[in-house]
Amino acid sequence: MPGTHLILLRHGESTWNADDRFAGWVDIPLTDGGREEAIRAGHAITEAAVLPDVVHTSLLRRAISTANTVLDTTDRHWIPVRRTWRLNERHYGALQGCSRGDIRDKFGADQFKRWRRSFDEAPPPLEPGSPWGQDREIRYQSSCVDVPKTESLHDVTTRLLPHWTGSVVPDLRSGKTVLVVAHGNVLRTLLIHLHGIPRSEADQIQISTGEPLWLTLDESLRPM
Amino acid sequence: MPGTHLILLRHGESTWNADDRFAGWVDIPLTDGGREEAIRAGHAITEAAVLPDVVHTSLLRRAISTANTVLDTTDRHWIPVRRTWRLNERHYGALQGCSRGDIRDKFGADQFKRWRRSFDEAPPPLEPGSPWGQDREIRYQSSCVDVPKTESLHDVTTRLLPHWTGSVVPDLRSGKTVLVVAHGNVLRTLLIHLHGIPRSEADQIQISTGEPLWLTLDESLRPM
Repeated sequence: MPGTHLILLRHGESTWNADDRFAGWVDIPLTDGGREEAIRAGHAITEAAVLPDVVHTSLLRRAISTANTVLDTTDRHWIPVRRTWRLNERHYGALQGCSRGDIRDKFGADQFKRWRRSFDEAPPPLEPGSPWGQDREIRYQSSCVDVPKTESLHDVTTRLLPHWTGSVVPDLRSGKTVLVVAHGNVLRTLLIHLHGIPRSEADQIQISTGEPLWLTLDESLRPM
Repeated sequence: MPGTHLILLRHGESTWNADDRFAGWVDIPLTDGGREEAIRAGHAITEAAVLPDVVHTSLLRRAISTANTVLDTTDRHWIPVRRTWRLNERHYGALQGCSRGDIRDKFGADQFKRWRRSFDEAPPPLEPGSPWGQDREIRYQSSCVDVPKTESLHDVTTRLLPHWTGSVVPDLRSGKTVLVVAHGNVLRTLLIHLHGIPRSEADQIQISTGEPLWLTLDESLRPM
């Protein structure tokens, strides 16, 4: 197949997807159903016969477990792995740990939707000392990452693109098929960037858990 | 704890460990017992409270699955991963795929032991076209690796040390605790090198599956 291949995959269902809670940077594991989704994603990638040469993941368990399962299922367990906080889910600020239903009831459907889907609006910042913060996690300290207090999709774009440009693009340019296993808002942000989708239409992009998206890119790395 | 920390771990039991067959570069999965060994190894590493900052593995599933399970169990799923064919098990030549018992019966206990444990003697080369060869595996083609036909421990040393010097040592020098998840003969070779053990005593070193070995290294990276 001509062109350069990029496979985007949102992690399988996490326990907080199942509980309808905002996770963001909180490191939530997969459910049994999420692990099965990852196996099915692996079978789909095997059937498509466009197999990854390198995998990029976030530092969060739901993405890493999904990636490990997909690689095992596709017999690509041996490919190089690149992990970065820049592929982490959007930081959901004060919403992290909260029930979606509670937030919708408390702040109304319009505000709820703007926090979830608008490009420029970030939720209120996480309070210092919240049990749902990551300031003291060694994974960020060792990378000298300033853990955000909250993020809009605009903020996600700003911290995502250096990894796209500096690490994914070189892999694609060297002819590799790249698998990115990440999160709903990160993949939404990446699709907005790649397709040049107007930011006002950011809320139109829905990405299901565990369903691979195949993109074929032209020489300018634009989706064909 | 002062010093530089290196954790060596042989993969958990594989289906061919259980069947008493020579695996070498044949990509054999773990048994259920091997997966449990990996979980126990993870618990042991957590209890020792010397946690890895980076993991190095071979390109073989039994090491990679063990490493993934250990990292998940120790909450270190997010650390960087480095994979290399240079950490693959010793290539067992014509013995790959054979029952150990059959080989012992056919060639006698002395020859059997020399093939398994001596430093300089390699088994007979694998026949071209053998179902147990790896010449056509994409994982080696994409790395431009000349798949060996057989290897002695001396050969393993020659191909292992460039990875030790070029990748593990820089990680150790930067203060990282390094976890190496690999194979019996590779870890034996590494211990001979690090401890300066006479090659004639190579047969004295036994390494059990799934049991972490902790080494504390001095400033010259010699075991203390």
